[in-house]
Amino acid sequence: MGVQALLKSNSLLQWHPHSVSKAERAGLKSQRPCLLWFTGLSGSGKSTLANRLERRLWEMGKHTYLLDGDNIRHGLNRDLGFSDVDRRENIRRIGEVAKLFIDSGLIVLAAFISPFRQEREQIRTQLDEGEFIEIFVDMPLPVCEARDPKGLYRKARRGELRGFTGIDAPYEAPDAPEIHLSDPAADEAEQTEMILRYLKDNGYL
Amino acid sequence: MGVQALLKSNSLLQWHPHSVSKAERAGLKSQRPCLLWFTGLSGSGKSTLANRLERRLWEMGKHTYLLDGDNIRHGLNRDLGFSDVDRRENIRRIGEVAKLFIDSGLIVLAAFISPFRQEREQIRTQLDEGEFIEIFVDMPLPVCEARDPKGLYRKARRGELRGFTGIDAPYEAPDAPEIHLSDPAADEAEQTEMILRYLKDNGYL
Repeated sequence: MGVQALLKSNSLLQWHPHSVSKAERAGLKSQRPCLLWFTGLSGSGKSTLANRLERRLWEMGKHTYLLDGDNIRHGLNRDLGFSDVDRRENIRRIGEVAKLFIDSGLIVLAAFISPFRQEREQIRTQLDEGEFIEIFVDMPLPVCEARDPKGLYRKARRGELRGFTGIDAPYEAPDAPEIHLSDPAADEAEQTEMILRYLKDNGYL
Repeated sequence: MGVQALLKSNSLLQWHPHSVSKAERAGLKSQRPCLLWFTGLSGSGKSTLANRLERRLWEMGKHTYLLDGDNIRHGLNRDLGFSDVDRRENIRRIGEVAKLFIDSGLIVLAAFISPFRQEREQIRTQLDEGEFIEIFVDMPLPVCEARDPKGLYRKARRGELRGFTGIDAPYEAPDAPEIHLSDPAADEAEQTEMILRYLKDNGYL
């Protein structure tokens, strides 16, 4: 048996009586750590909304961190492609990293299309009760496609992109998201306040 | 409502995301984020020292997070074994996660034997100047072996563990660690204060 395998196998891992606990970290920060998971089509506004919310939280003195394609796909997950196996591994790692950040006491925001119900539920089960807050940015496909900020829908329609969510790959809408943003008349500022209200009402802030 | 009307009604297109920057996060926390990398033989006291230091920092109101075998090998890196390829990937991911935590504004502590110079230097290069603080817990092998808190050296000497650092695998000592703890007379409390002094003198606290 290898050394580390033995370490992994059981209770030989030392218990450190003086470790700073999750509750102590969170206490220092006056907030209840959680993962705010923004899901929705490309162009639905997930990243913009997450950024805006993060800034509002920062102004309130809350300690946050935003995980998105920019800092995950180019760093930790840059070895992964877009096969089914790699997609699952991508989501698994994001879930594990979010778990570490929650353990560190932060409010984590994550903005990923994450089209599959099973993937999102996997992350929910990786976390403790009440730590996963699914935010469904429910913008109709025609709106997202008309915006098309990165020109991706155009490429997908021309067949230059394969497996593009909403065009030739499915998006499985959440069954019971904690927050469902579906009012097309609500602007981004209002959506942000809706999320803040949820966080206050449920004791996260 | 038509697509264009929806687009007009929503301010998403007008608002430019202003992400919370690394400096702003750090400012909120009154500390300079960095990675404190404890390296040394099994039984040298890395984890105990890192835990003690973390508690001292917590008492000072500093925001920290500790990465070690407990929360990394069982979570994010549980798919990795101990081949050369997997070891490198293990270290790469730890470096990437540390980078995210530093970006989030935290002081990160990491306690891993990390016997290879090249692996530690790889993490240093993944981070910005001054963010990597290598702490060499330089305890002589006979002392570590006499302690043997987990009975691993005994197992290694009996040939029940292979590739054990210091016994049948090399430990490459750091050339120029930021902090070198080599005084066998210094107890753990003194070592902790030495590190705190370094952090204060160099503007991290």
